[in-house]
Amino acid sequence: MSELRKDPIVDRWVIIAAERGRRPHEFEAPPEETAPGAACPLCEGSERMTPPEIWAIRPEGSAPDTPGWQLRVVPNKFPALRVEGEMNRRGLGIFDLMDGVGAHEVIVETPEHDWHMADGPDASVEQVLRAYQVRLTDLYRDERLRYCVIFRNHGLDAGASLSHPHSQIIAIPVVPRRVKGKLAAAREYYDRKERCIFCDIIAQELALRDRIVLESEHFVAIAPFASRFPFELLVLPRRHTHDFGALSDKGRMGLARIVRRCLAALRPALGHLSYNFVLNVAPNPVPRPGKPDYWTTLHLDYHWHLEILPRVTRLAGFEWGTGFYVNPVAPEEAASFLRDVLADEDRAGGAPSVEVSAPGG
Amino acid sequence: MSELRKDPIVDRWVIIAAERGRRPHEFEAPPEETAPGAACPLCEGSERMTPPEIWAIRPEGSAPDTPGWQLRVVPNKFPALRVEGEMNRRGLGIFDLMDGVGAHEVIVETPEHDWHMADGPDASVEQVLRAYQVRLTDLYRDERLRYCVIFRNHGLDAGASLSHPHSQIIAIPVVPRRVKGKLAAAREYYDRKERCIFCDIIAQELALRDRIVLESEHFVAIAPFASRFPFELLVLPRRHTHDFGALSDKGRMGLARIVRRCLAALRPALGHLSYNFVLNVAPNPVPRPGKPDYWTTLHLDYHWHLEILPRVTRLAGFEWGTGFYVNPVAPEEAASFLRDVLADEDRAGGAPSVEVSAPGG
Repeated sequence: MSELRKDPIVDRWVIIAAERGRRPHEFEAPPEETAPGAACPLCEGSERMTPPEIWAIRPEGSAPDTPGWQLRVVPNKFPALRVEGEMNRRGLGIFDLMDGVGAHEVIVETPEHDWHMADGPDASVEQVLRAYQVRLTDLYRDERLRYCVIFRNHGLDAGASLSHPHSQIIAIPVVPRRVKGKLAAAREYYDRKERCIFCDIIAQELALRDRIVLESEHFVAIAPFASRFPFELLVLPRRHTHDFGALSDKGRMGLARIVRRCLAALRPALGHLSYNFVLNVAPNPVPRPGKPDYWTTLHLDYHWHLEILPRVTRLAGFEWGTGFYVNPVAPEEAASFLRDVLADEDRAGGAPSVEVSAPGG
Repeated sequence: MSELRKDPIVDRWVIIAAERGRRPHEFEAPPEETAPGAACPLCEGSERMTPPEIWAIRPEGSAPDTPGWQLRVVPNKFPALRVEGEMNRRGLGIFDLMDGVGAHEVIVETPEHDWHMADGPDASVEQVLRAYQVRLTDLYRDERLRYCVIFRNHGLDAGASLSHPHSQIIAIPVVPRRVKGKLAAAREYYDRKERCIFCDIIAQELALRDRIVLESEHFVAIAPFASRFPFELLVLPRRHTHDFGALSDKGRMGLARIVRRCLAALRPALGHLSYNFVLNVAPNPVPRPGKPDYWTTLHLDYHWHLEILPRVTRLAGFEWGTGFYVNPVAPEEAASFLRDVLADEDRAGGAPSVEVSAPGG
């Protein structure tokens, strides 16, 4: 059983997952690209190498954990957290800890070992987003699970340990402080203005235009004003909504398209591209007596968003010491470069510039 | 001129240092190991390749920017921030920004291109720490500079762009939120208990012993209870003090020794070692009317410390999304491994187990 430990000074939790651990000497070798086929636990035909599937997109009537699927969701074989058991919150003198209760799932996005999300088609990306929705909704039925992180690591520099295309979901029994910070700030802004801060940022960026990378009828991709990393991107729904789970079929298709086009535009900018993307959903809206009331006002002041974080600079001591980042590429420059790439693609007829699908109830 | 931009949602500043920037395509190539000699701007004989030196340890009477030195401090040739000019705090609609006023200095630790701090001697490490003290004290004379980050990146994975041994100092016109968080937490603890939280942690760890890596008369090295990274280490003075600048000659020698031994012990654990170390000093204690009173109580509740952060795991989407870390090595295991390495070294007679130097007034 892993442990959740809280830093005694700041409100930062860490999962000590020693059962996933390697012996000290085993840290020397970097993770390797895995070969497709029988050696890859996520390829078609290797279904028995993963724990039994939780959910899948596969032909009707086909048996779980057999070939023929288009997408599978399975528990992580080396989970950082497990669903079984009690949290057992306790102290150790000045320290706080609890057992590592939670969920850690892997979304195997495709049977194709060498698929790149940037290459599409949009319908394949849409299936991945559908899996996020289905699993998020299901995991939030467990009231112990207060927050779900949905993320994708692409490339070795982004921390991917398997090269087969996959995403991960980790559901945790605490709301992480980075999320709490955003929630509190959004609530505080709403208290002052009775407007969503994310909506205000979108409106200003659409008026100024110099950090807009791509917009469609229902989504917008922005190079954020205070980008931490070169070519960092933020994708938001234009219409206010805190609830990723409520995205319609058409909305999902629109999101798939803008995400896929953003990833495709980053490739000419960055060459061999490693990136993380992180879907920032709202926490599980379970009533929590005595806790700040931003839990009950999420629908007013929170706005889900997806961050794309290319891994082109390495974090160094300055960033670790301060949480203060140095970014050598102005977001306006990044946005201008990416707009040019996308315009070239449009001129080449590779993609229509107008989005046709629309989200809705 | 670079810009400091604040994230519109959370209290996070970013330096947009586009003048250091490379063109988008130039991000493809990783930094390279530099060769020693004429090609290395930090080697002896290359003094004209750096801006004029600010401070140095060199034979009495020798001219600045000539060979013969043991250590040099020079401005960064591609500074993230510059000392000249006004801060010009301003808004852009919903956003906050200011000009990139500050200082960015490089401490060239030795003329020897291939020196490893882990190999010592302690006296060479002590000279580096002396340079930190001298520059910190000087920079804090400028009331605009509210915080100094002193750090060292070793190895390409740690973000070092030059392989010649060096540290960096960045002095910034705001207190970063990570530091503010620590200051506020330390103050809040002191308010409740009238004790320093760092002192309490040291006392508990010395009583429990399982996370103690090394202790000397005046310093202690701990694998922190909620370590974010495998083999993360925290070095603290045992006696309460917030003021790194006030460290005595003997104290500096004691710190040099424990830091050098920690780095040496990490090598057998991690093989080819990349690490960041970050000296966490107190902010510039300039009175700031209207600001929280922890500024005036630093001497009671803050305790300087040095973090050693080995770079063995890559941050992935989960960490970026949440500020919540997964660490596959329990700190107790790391501490036990490092204690064994150090005991072997002691038995081999490589180093006496009792520290002889002592800090003092």
